[in-house]
Amino acid sequence: MSFDVTAVRADFPILSREVNGKPLVYLDSGASAQKPQVVIDAINTAYASEYANVHRGLHYLSNLATEKYEGVRGTIAKFLGATNENTIVLNSGTTEGINTVAYGWAMENMQAGDEIILSVMEHHANIVPWHFLRERMGVKLVWVDVDANGDLDPQKVLDAVTPRTKLIAVTQLSNVLGTVVDVKTICHAAREQGIATLIDGSQGAVHMPVDVEDLGCDFYPITGHKLYGPSGSGAIYIRAERMAEMRPFLGGGDMIREVHKDNVIYNDAPMKFEAGTPGIVQTIGLGVALEYLMDLGMENVAAHERVIRDYARSKLDGLNWLNVQGTSANKAAIFSFTLDGAAHAHDISTVLDKKGVAVRAGQHCTGPLMDHLGLAATCRASFAMYNTTDDVDALVDALELCHKLFA
Amino acid sequence: MSFDVTAVRADFPILSREVNGKPLVYLDSGASAQKPQVVIDAINTAYASEYANVHRGLHYLSNLATEKYEGVRGTIAKFLGATNENTIVLNSGTTEGINTVAYGWAMENMQAGDEIILSVMEHHANIVPWHFLRERMGVKLVWVDVDANGDLDPQKVLDAVTPRTKLIAVTQLSNVLGTVVDVKTICHAAREQGIATLIDGSQGAVHMPVDVEDLGCDFYPITGHKLYGPSGSGAIYIRAERMAEMRPFLGGGDMIREVHKDNVIYNDAPMKFEAGTPGIVQTIGLGVALEYLMDLGMENVAAHERVIRDYARSKLDGLNWLNVQGTSANKAAIFSFTLDGAAHAHDISTVLDKKGVAVRAGQHCTGPLMDHLGLAATCRASFAMYNTTDDVDALVDALELCHKLFA
Repeated sequence: MSFDVTAVRADFPILSREVNGKPLVYLDSGASAQKPQVVIDAINTAYASEYANVHRGLHYLSNLATEKYEGVRGTIAKFLGATNENTIVLNSGTTEGINTVAYGWAMENMQAGDEIILSVMEHHANIVPWHFLRERMGVKLVWVDVDANGDLDPQKVLDAVTPRTKLIAVTQLSNVLGTVVDVKTICHAAREQGIATLIDGSQGAVHMPVDVEDLGCDFYPITGHKLYGPSGSGAIYIRAERMAEMRPFLGGGDMIREVHKDNVIYNDAPMKFEAGTPGIVQTIGLGVALEYLMDLGMENVAAHERVIRDYARSKLDGLNWLNVQGTSANKAAIFSFTLDGAAHAHDISTVLDKKGVAVRAGQHCTGPLMDHLGLAATCRASFAMYNTTDDVDALVDALELCHKLFA
Repeated sequence: MSFDVTAVRADFPILSREVNGKPLVYLDSGASAQKPQVVIDAINTAYASEYANVHRGLHYLSNLATEKYEGVRGTIAKFLGATNENTIVLNSGTTEGINTVAYGWAMENMQAGDEIILSVMEHHANIVPWHFLRERMGVKLVWVDVDANGDLDPQKVLDAVTPRTKLIAVTQLSNVLGTVVDVKTICHAAREQGIATLIDGSQGAVHMPVDVEDLGCDFYPITGHKLYGPSGSGAIYIRAERMAEMRPFLGGGDMIREVHKDNVIYNDAPMKFEAGTPGIVQTIGLGVALEYLMDLGMENVAAHERVIRDYARSKLDGLNWLNVQGTSANKAAIFSFTLDGAAHAHDISTVLDKKGVAVRAGQHCTGPLMDHLGLAATCRASFAMYNTTDDVDALVDALELCHKLFA
């Protein structure tokens, strides 16, 4: 199947709207992606004619909702290359996923003085839960820098391993630099040494085919709203051997088999890690979004985005007053930048917005990376599968206006 | 404004559908309520034309989404009678809310041997997080029984207080018995003794006007999907003095002000307790649902449901082979029952379903109450504001068929 970006764009109703009197040029998919009509329709149908709580009912609507909801587990497993769908825990996104690992696995299996290796370009979602362990348990955080291009050398990560290393937690794809990390090399070497690996798939799963079993990771969280699915949807792949080492995290209904006054018998995994009434309709919507992506083919999505990346790179390289952060050869189509002169990232984004170009400005939830780069903030244009070279041109035109205004 | 149930029913598209060839008689709102068209429309609009991530953008769509999302905090505060909207933490529902209290407040402020008082009719969401404290910290759970009618005497709760009591966690309205608890008496007496109170509002907030400041509670969690809002939406009211005693629970973006390699500076409350990209669209939908309820008037909702309760009570009392659990005088319109003879609750619900009557069968996430009642399971018909006396008649007709089949 060939990838027809015009057809894809037509599937996303918001892309035909205007903002500030200009056609929307949405370059903020790294923060959250827009939703195709099939996902919106699925949400509509679920609420308008197929809604009930799941799992604990026996009536028609409850059975129907349960069937649709539980079917998503298999869809996610397929999308991530997991052969056993019971390795998929459904949740509200990467933040919940990584906190589940921190509270459910790390707090149970680590002690004061144990070490967690992180790259300097991690997102706060893959930093703050580990700071909790540092603050509360005396776990040590070990940081690995990226090089001048923004690349993370897998060997530098492995060189940081000591006998106290219990976990390596790194992103597959930087939300700021666009860097793609060779996580497979890291995971396989870590596995041989018995070290757990968490690969933050928040961005990676959106832009390339993923096979968690081939990668060899233990934990792979994803977040639905970046994957063209509903807000508040998500999942985490947890390798069965690691799941067996975990204690439950959130307590409530569904994650138990029996509750008495004096004791609790927990449910089998993965239900053991899914407490309370879940995000039923969001999860159903996420399933539809992933089916949509698999129909397009993630290889095709990635190929299209490489074209956008190459075009954007050549255009932005021509602006000698623009400083792009992250020049890794095979990076994703994510461009963070500053402008020469005094213009603040927030002012730049405001000017771009007046031209209909939506970018994000700030730290992008990457404080340590900003410290490393010596920057207070950047603007970030993050392209997605529905973007075109025309969008790149619109960005460049708007940036040239900025340059004139602020130079 | 008078309450027009016909008009209300017309607002809920699913109520006009059939199941198994019969008009749907939805008596499972205690598990999850259906959604009015205004909520479905709000979700649609959000995704089709107003979607972006919140808080961290400066472009038009991000500002618009942020404004709509953050506006819900004030709506919830108004709905719950909280004068300061910063006492409202937005989340995914009661389960997350109570876990936030368990991990964020109780684990920080309790020690081995400290005591938590619970009623025997609590939902697992208000039990399992406390069992975590028992298992992990040696906290003691102290249980207070209900009487033969299913009433919980506030004095019995207060009599269970010892110098080690740190928390009283009770429901405002039993999801099985329909019992309404005089939580105000409990909260005011507890406050005088410096004991924290958590009132589970999952059911209470749905069926009566709530004023958390008048109740005097410290923690009041609600869950959006029972309040006619989207799945995966919710909030918890936390009295400011208690919020100041809490450590952060989920770690990630948004709940921090600064993140560095060696330290974190957390955000101010309530953001400190809201990690990562939130359930943006669900929360917007919850706001619309609560506005819808406030337009109807919770006093009017409660008055309508009292009519349904009284009619159902008189009809069900006439079935001398039906055993209703919970006969409290001012109970909500929730009827859990078993039938004389061998019929299992699951079989009963299956027969009812064939007649289009949707009820729930099982333990209803209340293991200790089932132990107390000596029952393995019940059927539960839970009425909501869109139900009518015709729905009661449909239930009674279907029950009579059951009785004939299984007698």
